[in-house]
Amino acid sequence: MSDGESKEELTELVERNDLTGIRLWLAEHPPYEIADELERMDSRSAIIPFRLLDKDRELEVFEELEPVHQHEILLGLRNTAFHELLEEMNPDDRARLIGEAPAKIATRALAGLSPAERKMTAALLGYPEESVGRYMTPETVILHRDLTVARALEVVRAKGAEAETVYTLPVVDDGRRLAGTVELTDLLLSDDDNLLKDVVDVFVARVRATEPAEDAARLMQEANLVALPVVDSEERFVGLLTFDDALELIEAADSEDIARQSGASPVAGHYVAASVVRLARARSVWLLLLIVATTLTVNVMQAFEATLEQVTALALFVPMLTGTGGNVGSQSATAIVRALAVGEVRVRDLPRVAWKEALVGILLGFMLATVALAIGALLVGISVAGVVAVAVIAVCTWAAIIGSTMPLLARRVGVDPAVVSAPLVSTLVDATGLLIYFSIARMLLGV
Amino acid sequence: MSDGESKEELTELVERNDLTGIRLWLAEHPPYEIADELERMDSRSAIIPFRLLDKDRELEVFEELEPVHQHEILLGLRNTAFHELLEEMNPDDRARLIGEAPAKIATRALAGLSPAERKMTAALLGYPEESVGRYMTPETVILHRDLTVARALEVVRAKGAEAETVYTLPVVDDGRRLAGTVELTDLLLSDDDNLLKDVVDVFVARVRATEPAEDAARLMQEANLVALPVVDSEERFVGLLTFDDALELIEAADSEDIARQSGASPVAGHYVAASVVRLARARSVWLLLLIVATTLTVNVMQAFEATLEQVTALALFVPMLTGTGGNVGSQSATAIVRALAVGEVRVRDLPRVAWKEALVGILLGFMLATVALAIGALLVGISVAGVVAVAVIAVCTWAAIIGSTMPLLARRVGVDPAVVSAPLVSTLVDATGLLIYFSIARMLLGV
Repeated sequence: MSDGESKEELTELVERNDLTGIRLWLAEHPPYEIADELERMDSRSAIIPFRLLDKDRELEVFEELEPVHQHEILLGLRNTAFHELLEEMNPDDRARLIGEAPAKIATRALAGLSPAERKMTAALLGYPEESVGRYMTPETVILHRDLTVARALEVVRAKGAEAETVYTLPVVDDGRRLAGTVELTDLLLSDDDNLLKDVVDVFVARVRATEPAEDAARLMQEANLVALPVVDSEERFVGLLTFDDALELIEAADSEDIARQSGASPVAGHYVAASVVRLARARSVWLLLLIVATTLTVNVMQAFEATLEQVTALALFVPMLTGTGGNVGSQSATAIVRALAVGEVRVRDLPRVAWKEALVGILLGFMLATVALAIGALLVGISVAGVVAVAVIAVCTWAAIIGSTMPLLARRVGVDPAVVSAPLVSTLVDATGLLIYFSIARMLLGV
Repeated sequence: MSDGESKEELTELVERNDLTGIRLWLAEHPPYEIADELERMDSRSAIIPFRLLDKDRELEVFEELEPVHQHEILLGLRNTAFHELLEEMNPDDRARLIGEAPAKIATRALAGLSPAERKMTAALLGYPEESVGRYMTPETVILHRDLTVARALEVVRAKGAEAETVYTLPVVDDGRRLAGTVELTDLLLSDDDNLLKDVVDVFVARVRATEPAEDAARLMQEANLVALPVVDSEERFVGLLTFDDALELIEAADSEDIARQSGASPVAGHYVAASVVRLARARSVWLLLLIVATTLTVNVMQAFEATLEQVTALALFVPMLTGTGGNVGSQSATAIVRALAVGEVRVRDLPRVAWKEALVGILLGFMLATVALAIGALLVGISVAGVVAVAVIAVCTWAAIIGSTMPLLARRVGVDPAVVSAPLVSTLVDATGLLIYFSIARMLLGV
């Protein structure tokens, strides 16, 4: 797709301070590749090629950067350049930049805007973070339902240059209430004398500006929409969520869920540019909680110390048992968290899901138990191997139930299901799994 | 967004065989919600409401279904309905359906198509699975670069109805080689007498039809493209990849990566509709491999049995140590697999990434070691606690290095980095971590 080799050069050109070389490199690469390369550099280096961009491309590249990198670039710009850049940005991109910026940048940015742009930005910033309102574009061509197709096309041609998109056109009634949308294609292909009210798609999906942006993006994916109309609480049209934001939202939401699944907080910005301290901090909270939670495993082991001393071979299988239980539990949790995220499973499916996963756990347990039995019999003899095998079945079933129900319970109490991470499930299953293991040992071996 | 309560009713209506109720329900819901509800039902139930749909909506609902559910519906249709449905589908959706269908359905489907549609489908099926060629639409309006803008708009109006999209229009030269694309907006807003060759965007990104579809979708996200032109090996235009396919590809690719990260194979189709056996099978392969691999932990424990008998307290901390090491390693692996998937990290970053993760591991190790030291000192005394603390630092560092380098090495040898799952890393870290732990114990305690 892109030639990876020639890309890396930019860093080298900047290191050598080869301005001609940098200019040439910039001319040969599209904005998104330039942005990608800038995100990999530290902020002091990134500003050098950025300053060498032409005015037009400067904006294009800037809009491709993630907010955290935009802030770094802004800090390296002179006042005029700073304000020009912000003035020209799309209102939704600008609102996001300012919403996530440190107070110093945010105040300076808002102060420098023209009244019209400031008003638009303030309106978007009035919506909650991560809501549709922060991502939608208010710059659209709005059509009244009483227009003819021919007249509507004239309006599009007259006002389209200022809109972010004209592919999906909102159609409103007298009170600016959304009547539906019309696709530009349908306008082009339909009879000039038709009225908009006869061609408008009134069944089109719509969302409130205060709803979560991720849900809106997933709806666009499901309904195959290039743009989704956004309304306020009185059904008045306020903006469009466009496909490029939907793509970005889905990718970002998945990145967040994936990070959370490993017990880490999501880190904003490019991996390569993230500092060691920031990476460590994002991962530390859960690790600290979990290592404290593992004290439970030490307690269980202590409680059964007498059993362990009588049958020392039992200790040998502790890592195998906790490892296997953790793996099964993580798989169940991961599957359910994802099914919830993409809308395949809902909270009220809990009993059905728990039952299904329990059966999956039993099935997997029997399969793994035969392997454990063989390994155990080979290494320490049949009696301990029997205990291990029975424990594997019980632990797998238990792990699948825990792993599948916890995300659903989290959602029910209003917590992001993705916090039910693989490490969390493993740790919980470790302690309870050992309890099961040693109890089975006592019963079967009579110690 | 959608009212969950009224949705569930469809299942009940079908159970009661209430045909009027089903018809009413169908009329009130958009195609993507109907499709979602059908995917949650078993195939015998799903066919009942499907048969009650009007002809137009039947196709819309059908195209929203995932291939595996499409196959089930097809099997429940009479011959005429079966062939009509396939004939009317978009060529790219049809090719994907047939490409993934059991041989019986595939043969029957191809045989029933009209010669023109069959030829188009066969061409798409000629591309490798999961390549751009399978997802692109060949039904586009192609413009020659010597046309005027006015003439181009006429062509769009005349031929647009048959195209899947006209928002991005491919512009070609005499040899059908792609010169670039022009956005419909730009045509509408530009002067009628302009020539296409003056307004065409020649720098637009393009991909080969044989490239992986996921990479193309991510490129569209990065470059904010509503459609991406696809060319053959001679740079001739062959189709467009549209934004709705990109959204679907990204969501599906992320679902696959997430499943792989937990050591499971992706399961096609809706979670609720998947059978217990299918779910268990998807998770069994890695679990079996990993439980065999945990034999290593038994071996390590056996090798140090003498040490364990001398200082029995060491055994108490085995689950804490393996759990923590596994968590740190999983976090590193998850972060790097994701960074690779979204293109933030490349294979040649390996030394830089390994070094960074090693530092993160040391930092986290010291932090967790103080907790372990406190817990250990409280429960069993300072000497064993000291061993545990030192081991935590070593194991965390080791886990971070293993977890971060393995996905990069996998990519380098051409294996999907996502196979480096959290369970795989945990299991590897378990065995090596125990080796480190007991070696430190021997050194520090002199046993």
